[in-house]
Amino acid sequence: MTMKARHLLGLEYLDREDIELILKTTKSFREILDRPIKKVPTLQGKTVVNLFFEPSTRTRISFELAEKRLSADSVNFSKEGSSVKKGETLLDTARNIEAMKIDFVVIRHQSPGAPHFLAQKLESRVINAGDGAHEHPTQGLLDMVTMTDKHPTFKNLRVGIVGDISHSRVAMSNIHGLLKMNAKVTVCGPATLIPREIEKLGVHVCYDIDELIPRVDVLNILRIQLERQESGLFPSLREYHNYFGITRQRLEKATKPITIMHPGPINRGVEISSDVADSEHSVILDQVTNGVAVRMAVLYLLAGGEHVTN
Amino acid sequence: MTMKARHLLGLEYLDREDIELILKTTKSFREILDRPIKKVPTLQGKTVVNLFFEPSTRTRISFELAEKRLSADSVNFSKEGSSVKKGETLLDTARNIEAMKIDFVVIRHQSPGAPHFLAQKLESRVINAGDGAHEHPTQGLLDMVTMTDKHPTFKNLRVGIVGDISHSRVAMSNIHGLLKMNAKVTVCGPATLIPREIEKLGVHVCYDIDELIPRVDVLNILRIQLERQESGLFPSLREYHNYFGITRQRLEKATKPITIMHPGPINRGVEISSDVADSEHSVILDQVTNGVAVRMAVLYLLAGGEHVTN
Amino acid sequence: MTMKARHLLGLEYLDREDIELILKTTKSFREILDRPIKKVPTLQGKTVVNLFFEPSTRTRISFELAEKRLSADSVNFSKEGSSVKKGETLLDTARNIEAMKIDFVVIRHQSPGAPHFLAQKLESRVINAGDGAHEHPTQGLLDMVTMTDKHPTFKNLRVGIVGDISHSRVAMSNIHGLLKMNAKVTVCGPATLIPREIEKLGVHVCYDIDELIPRVDVLNILRIQLERQESGLFPSLREYHNYFGITRQRLEKATKPITIMHPGPINRGVEISSDVADSEHSVILDQVTNGVAVRMAVLYLLAGGEHVTN
Repeated sequence: MTMKARHLLGLEYLDREDIELILKTTKSFREILDRPIKKVPTLQGKTVVNLFFEPSTRTRISFELAEKRLSADSVNFSKEGSSVKKGETLLDTARNIEAMKIDFVVIRHQSPGAPHFLAQKLESRVINAGDGAHEHPTQGLLDMVTMTDKHPTFKNLRVGIVGDISHSRVAMSNIHGLLKMNAKVTVCGPATLIPREIEKLGVHVCYDIDELIPRVDVLNILRIQLERQESGLFPSLREYHNYFGITRQRLEKATKPITIMHPGPINRGVEISSDVADSEHSVILDQVTNGVAVRMAVLYLLAGGEHVTN
Repeated sequence: MTMKARHLLGLEYLDREDIELILKTTKSFREILDRPIKKVPTLQGKTVVNLFFEPSTRTRISFELAEKRLSADSVNFSKEGSSVKKGETLLDTARNIEAMKIDFVVIRHQSPGAPHFLAQKLESRVINAGDGAHEHPTQGLLDMVTMTDKHPTFKNLRVGIVGDISHSRVAMSNIHGLLKMNAKVTVCGPATLIPREIEKLGVHVCYDIDELIPRVDVLNILRIQLERQESGLFPSLREYHNYFGITRQRLEKATKPITIMHPGPINRGVEISSDVADSEHSVILDQVTNGVAVRMAVLYLLAGGEHVTN
Repeated sequence: MTMKARHLLGLEYLDREDIELILKTTKSFREILDRPIKKVPTLQGKTVVNLFFEPSTRTRISFELAEKRLSADSVNFSKEGSSVKKGETLLDTARNIEAMKIDFVVIRHQSPGAPHFLAQKLESRVINAGDGAHEHPTQGLLDMVTMTDKHPTFKNLRVGIVGDISHSRVAMSNIHGLLKMNAKVTVCGPATLIPREIEKLGVHVCYDIDELIPRVDVLNILRIQLERQESGLFPSLREYHNYFGITRQRLEKATKPITIMHPGPINRGVEISSDVADSEHSVILDQVTNGVAVRMAVLYLLAGGEHVTN
């Protein structure tokens, strides 16, 4: 069985079968990461360009490791010191890079839709590593894989996504992916940070974290962008913590343990308290490990690989 | 047959035989780039340092891909955060890097002659990736390879180089290389941007693009550095475009199709109009592909490789 | 014989046997660097993260080359554009990176003790690439290897360390390593740049370079940080040079040739004159070569490798 989509642009554009294929393939690559030799020759002689128009450490390193462990050659492009500053269009930059005979373009860009635009114009396979507030599909997929490590099925799994929903590509990718798998998704945060009419996507909305907690199996806690404080969308970090911060005390209202997730980097004492981040129900570091495996799986499948049982 | 020159410092310093050898070898490597596995073990266990004292994306990535596809190990050095800032001399920096047992130094430097200086002092093979307004020999070579894709011979091939000749290392490398192969070269641009007495090199000078167009087979259109506008060397970008911009309308005055080249990044609507850049006679993206192949060929030949027919 | 220490945090924490093992193993790797193919498969499938919180070119490139020549995969992390700027703690950054299934963390950090802290918290092997003014153990080891190239034994070898002892992690690593091998160490510099009570470590102190010179076999000359001038710790670079700069004239007072060492980058005409830096007794570039070999040896031994005689 091979993947139908030619690119990974967003979970909105993948069908359920492709999502299931990626999740299953990720488990195989996850096992490779526990071996002493964490390298396979799958993409030998293939080239990946990591095209990062926004600074990133975590996601870039995760992709780079996935590429190297598949034996691909990878080169990094960052906005600094590039021709983009010289007024070159995104399309010209991408066409130039592709003319160097590239197989994959991993792109992070501040503009929603930039990866789609490239996918229409280029021969290479395009992977969206985050486009503005639109989608961050490998993050959505790694979140989903991590949920399946703890919960047998997505059907009726109750997932709460907490924080700045309006500006979060992580939230959007989670919503699209989880709804396709028939999970029940509730978004929760200050009214100023939740998009109007988001219910139309099929999610529930809740403005009170203490009401949400007893009704979910998983909490995916979004990072509060510290710079958002100055925008007037919420009064202060302290206020945010008081009303929406996930603390041990708050979690005690749940009837059973809740799986705690966060895309990182975490702000200890703001959206999550330290004891919750470090608790036995936190799978935050598992998310990071699964992130490398998901990226290996996506590269493998986009290269035409079939699912293998190992 | 092996290359006589030990370094690639400029096309001024290569003889005709070496140039022909590089062009021929490039064709072999160009074929490798169309294979599914674009990697050969030629330089396994060799080390290349990319020493970039000026920012560069395109050229650096092209060299990096060439190195990786030859299986060399490559490390990048950029001026930022380096000991150069701590007042170290270029020679001390280079000697230190060479003491790490490097085989090749690829250097871009703002000072004309910096690569020659290193070549005299180091054991490593030195490749000039651009030294001030002096030479950019791999660009010159990739331009020449691209010309041979479209035209059977350099003999009497009529090449026009248009733009800021005075500040262009691309122009200088083209001029030296093309004249050695008996092409006919005309430079064209505003009088303020053409060096006095450049005819002594053996090129023609033309100040009117509409006079030039009917008399060439190839136009190599240089990038106008946007920052040059403030120098007073030409009145404005709009003026430049009106007098020297290559447009479809202007090209209609040619009696037969002209091969359109540009080293990139292009300023659409300044030195070249979008329809010309994207036209069927534009080989701008072929230049980029040939760039990787030329750099592979140069590394291979400098390592002592012989020309192989594949 | 394998190494006892699990991490390389500082020479203060290694016993004499481990130091001897590293020095011996370095000699084997040093030989590999003279081969045409300078690459061995030792660490294939292992991953190293170079975590540089302070800018560095020389040390980072040296580690990167060591890693690549051992066939490890390496990824670079620098503070610029990283989550550290987003307020993430060092521990969270490190745990995240480790969750990507890393085998080695090479860390440079402005805070003394940062590598020790990580070593306590992480599963990976940690290598200190410089922590504040505390230690720079691979530099200390490469200095020691270079001394053994010129001198048969450390026993009673008389080493003078000259310069800003107070702010030098290079000095501290030299002192700890050399004293364990029973060398005799004297530190020399302006009184303002020598820590009080440093004699308690077992070194001698000397404030007059002309008194020191006739009494040493080796001079390890520290770099004067040019920015230190403004701190008032010494009057001017010229004054420093007059009182402590190592010149040919000064060295003539020695009864036999002194081995000249410097960790680089050198300030010609400040702490060392050009003729001394380039003299036949200078082993400054040998230090650089040995640096790559030391880092290969340390990675090899920390991965569980045994000393091999080749």
